[in-house]
Amino acid sequence: MITLSLIGIGTGNLDHVTLAAVRALNSADLILLPRKGEAKSDLIDLRRLLCERLLEEPVTTKIVEFDLPSRDSRNDHLSYNYLGAVDDWHAAIASVWAQLMDEHLPNGGRVGMLVWGDPSLYDSSLRITQRLSAAGKQVDVEVVPGITSLQVLTAEHKIPLNALAEPVQITTGRRLRERGWPNDAATVAVMLDSGGAFTTLPFDDTYIWWGAYLGMDKQCLIKGWLSEVSDQIIQRRAELRDTHGWIMDIYLLAKKPEK
Amino acid sequence: MITLSLIGIGTGNLDHVTLAAVRALNSADLILLPRKGEAKSDLIDLRRLLCERLLEEPVTTKIVEFDLPSRDSRNDHLSYNYLGAVDDWHAAIASVWAQLMDEHLPNGGRVGMLVWGDPSLYDSSLRITQRLSAAGKQVDVEVVPGITSLQVLTAEHKIPLNALAEPVQITTGRRLRERGWPNDAATVAVMLDSGGAFTTLPFDDTYIWWGAYLGMDKQCLIKGWLSEVSDQIIQRRAELRDTHGWIMDIYLLAKKPEK
Repeated sequence: MITLSLIGIGTGNLDHVTLAAVRALNSADLILLPRKGEAKSDLIDLRRLLCERLLEEPVTTKIVEFDLPSRDSRNDHLSYNYLGAVDDWHAAIASVWAQLMDEHLPNGGRVGMLVWGDPSLYDSSLRITQRLSAAGKQVDVEVVPGITSLQVLTAEHKIPLNALAEPVQITTGRRLRERGWPNDAATVAVMLDSGGAFTTLPFDDTYIWWGAYLGMDKQCLIKGWLSEVSDQIIQRRAELRDTHGWIMDIYLLAKKPEK
Repeated sequence: MITLSLIGIGTGNLDHVTLAAVRALNSADLILLPRKGEAKSDLIDLRRLLCERLLEEPVTTKIVEFDLPSRDSRNDHLSYNYLGAVDDWHAAIASVWAQLMDEHLPNGGRVGMLVWGDPSLYDSSLRITQRLSAAGKQVDVEVVPGITSLQVLTAEHKIPLNALAEPVQITTGRRLRERGWPNDAATVAVMLDSGGAFTTLPFDDTYIWWGAYLGMDKQCLIKGWLSEVSDQIIQRRAELRDTHGWIMDIYLLAKKPEK
């Protein structure tokens, strides 16, 4: 029998790893590390570093790297096709996971997957796990929570996520572009923005706290009224992506910030 | 000069503490532990336990307990008065913090405050900190993120917070009662519910993942369609509160859960 542990490892800052994550890493017989192509090689480097630093001697855990199947993104502009392509992609990944488990743990054991941030928030590991049974693999699942980039964003800007007693919406760049400001939220956190979805909002009364590479050495923070910092963020984002070959950034928006 | 470190300590499960939190605790000259009255004495006990377990020998950190001023809740049913009362309460707490800092660190140093969950999410520490200057105290602030009860809820139920590519709303029991299901969210996380705000929703098409005392030994989980588990949750919640003298519970709601 396989136990699959989805281990939230935070944002690349080793200090944000929890004691439970350290324990889960060390109790794994096999750790699977996905390679996502050259551009994001920083991310696999960070995962490797994390294993090196946190696995206790003598290391009995087998670490296996594999190439993540790529997703068909040609029709992403069509929402229906986007979901369908993601679905197919998750099935393909589940099939790779199952093969690797069969190959490296034919008699069962504990498998660890390192998940950026927390497995609950805009991460596909839990959905891929659900597809393992369709790929002929029965596993027990456990989830280890991890610090999300959103928590590092608010910690570094020293701000609350929610306005006092008010709701907060966590959404995607895509959705913000399509629907604008959500009706019932005083603050809005935006993730998975391919760039500048905030430019669709009214500039004068919206404040933004933006962050890229949160928790990493190259972390970058900008805050201010959209009317003052919108161009700066878009320009800085483009520069950073050119420099590093990839970027991950998120932001919090408020219409009437408390401060 | 005072540096005030707001340290997210997670939910009472020592394993959920991050390495950064352990470091921040150990670098503090003074840790302030609020007492919130008899009923919630479990919570100060857990904070004491956490200090005992995580402070390294020899312990050079001074730990000072203090009684948290109580909040005037007589007019909580009036939204305006609720916010005003919270405001006054934060000012009173800031004044107590300032006094304790003056008394125990007259020449400055590092103060640690242990914050349940994460300082960004429905927590008043950052707002109280802003009031310190009004109380005559200038401090540098740093924030250490911590695992929230919401992350433990999803980890224990092994579910994502957001539906695929969909927004999620984090809101309060009060707001859910007043406004019903938020317009733009496929899933809704509810915190600070004094009990049963979900009973105001349509029962047949709403699924709930509920949890109380998340991360603690006495953790309790229930999930199901509201039509089937609503009464069970309300009854169990009342029993648990009677048994333990206090309760903290949260839940995630979905209209069309993926599973």
